[in-house]
Amino acid sequence: MTDILNDFMERHKEILNKELKNCISRLDAPSILKEAMAYSLEAGGKRIRPLLLFAVLDSFGKKSEAGLATSIALEMIHTYSLVHDDLPSMDNDDLRRGKPTNHKVFGEAMAILAGDGLLTYSFQLIAEDQHLQAGQKIELLRLLSKCAGPEGMVAGQVADMEGENRELGISELEYIHIHKTGKLLTFSVLAGAIIGGADSRQLDCFEQFSHHLGLSFQISDDILDVTGDEEVMGKPVGSDTGRDKSTYPSVLTLEGAREHLSLHIEEAKKALGQTNLNTEILSQITDLIAERTH
Amino acid sequence: MTDILNDFMERHKEILNKELKNCISRLDAPSILKEAMAYSLEAGGKRIRPLLLFAVLDSFGKKSEAGLATSIALEMIHTYSLVHDDLPSMDNDDLRRGKPTNHKVFGEAMAILAGDGLLTYSFQLIAEDQHLQAGQKIELLRLLSKCAGPEGMVAGQVADMEGENRELGISELEYIHIHKTGKLLTFSVLAGAIIGGADSRQLDCFEQFSHHLGLSFQISDDILDVTGDEEVMGKPVGSDTGRDKSTYPSVLTLEGAREHLSLHIEEAKKALGQTNLNTEILSQITDLIAERTH
Repeated sequence: MTDILNDFMERHKEILNKELKNCISRLDAPSILKEAMAYSLEAGGKRIRPLLLFAVLDSFGKKSEAGLATSIALEMIHTYSLVHDDLPSMDNDDLRRGKPTNHKVFGEAMAILAGDGLLTYSFQLIAEDQHLQAGQKIELLRLLSKCAGPEGMVAGQVADMEGENRELGISELEYIHIHKTGKLLTFSVLAGAIIGGADSRQLDCFEQFSHHLGLSFQISDDILDVTGDEEVMGKPVGSDTGRDKSTYPSVLTLEGAREHLSLHIEEAKKALGQTNLNTEILSQITDLIAERTH
Repeated sequence: MTDILNDFMERHKEILNKELKNCISRLDAPSILKEAMAYSLEAGGKRIRPLLLFAVLDSFGKKSEAGLATSIALEMIHTYSLVHDDLPSMDNDDLRRGKPTNHKVFGEAMAILAGDGLLTYSFQLIAEDQHLQAGQKIELLRLLSKCAGPEGMVAGQVADMEGENRELGISELEYIHIHKTGKLLTFSVLAGAIIGGADSRQLDCFEQFSHHLGLSFQISDDILDVTGDEEVMGKPVGSDTGRDKSTYPSVLTLEGAREHLSLHIEEAKKALGQTNLNTEILSQITDLIAERTH
């Protein structure tokens, strides 16, 4: 990682983590609920979605302030999806990023409610933000609900469940990933573009970029699940194959998956180039995803 | 019930039920998810929240059209809360309105996701609506997320869980009801006022009205749980007391609960009077709540 990217990431993570704490602490809510919400938010993670949003804003030469509420909303929605995914009736995971999962600490009922709370609060944060214009707020709220809801992330989770324990073709696999993880990544990128003041041509370029970036991210995750070590992944290697989940290497072979990844990385960078913006940070983030499988 | 109120309710229920079907059927989502979402939406219920919204709009002499998306969103959020409340780790209910609960039909994982989908979609419906002005949309989305989220309905559900199996005082009991059911009723009323074009004085009156109406609704529910029959309630009589839940009759005695109810009904009607609007339908709905305990 270059110093520029490292500095960009550290700086924004700090702002973000501080504001996440603030947002929970100012809630007028039962303390156990706030604890349960904060627990999974603070469990860390790469904060890739907020960082993408900030990196897009940066490409417009805009300050991070206007994107802060939306990036917090993004991280809350991402976290809610993990809390619900980990539940016994879903993936039944005891550990997440090396820590006991939410329901292991707070019980199943509280984990469901903490997830519901994070999801709902994220809309409130955007609606209440003082830095966004009215038109931007509506566009962000519309796009976020579409990307996170039954036409987006929830659809992907359902398709993933329905696809377990049977062999999937590449198009089914892509449907799952485009929806389960891709849509929220797309929102991260497009939110940055909306707040940055993109024109419709630039929005198209960023949508293309996010599509290819999202698939790259998933493919590299699947490759790492075969070749990586537990420390890099934060979860046991081979945990997906162990549950008879179809993955890119299982469908395309490891070599095929690597070729597929290269293709998407190339397309992502091409789309970035067409924005006519200074997309250096975004380009470096894209490289980072490609490189982590080596 | 008067003919006027009966006609008002039947007419609006028909519009609402038709639009609920439309909203699900036009979703680009896995069919099993759409089925699970539709199942609980179609399970019926009194549609009291949308009707309140329409009744407030009516008091401004406004047509229902502008309130339709928001009333659908309301019913979706109410339904999501029931689906999640019924889950085995929460209330563990097998029946709701005489039909098997969502998780009994679709399984626990799908019920969680159907709830998540309903909650998220409700924000999308308001954000995408063509009849509302930008400022109204933002105010509706802000208020809805606040009333449904960790400072509203979710807080009430947590407090309710935390209060189980111990005796509650009247203020704890009111905290639970004001949050668990009251906040969303308040949103129903205020949403009608926002869409109707209320000034700030009228908004205050409607907020007062909804506060007292919400508590009336809960007290009459608790009284019916002691005195009513199963057909009226749609759930086994005494089911709350059977789980050692504190109720208004258990805290105030049956007579005390009835007095409390009269007081809140009176205050609700007083607030209505102060709006200087034609609140005949709202007044009749208030009477209906008072009367159902006799």
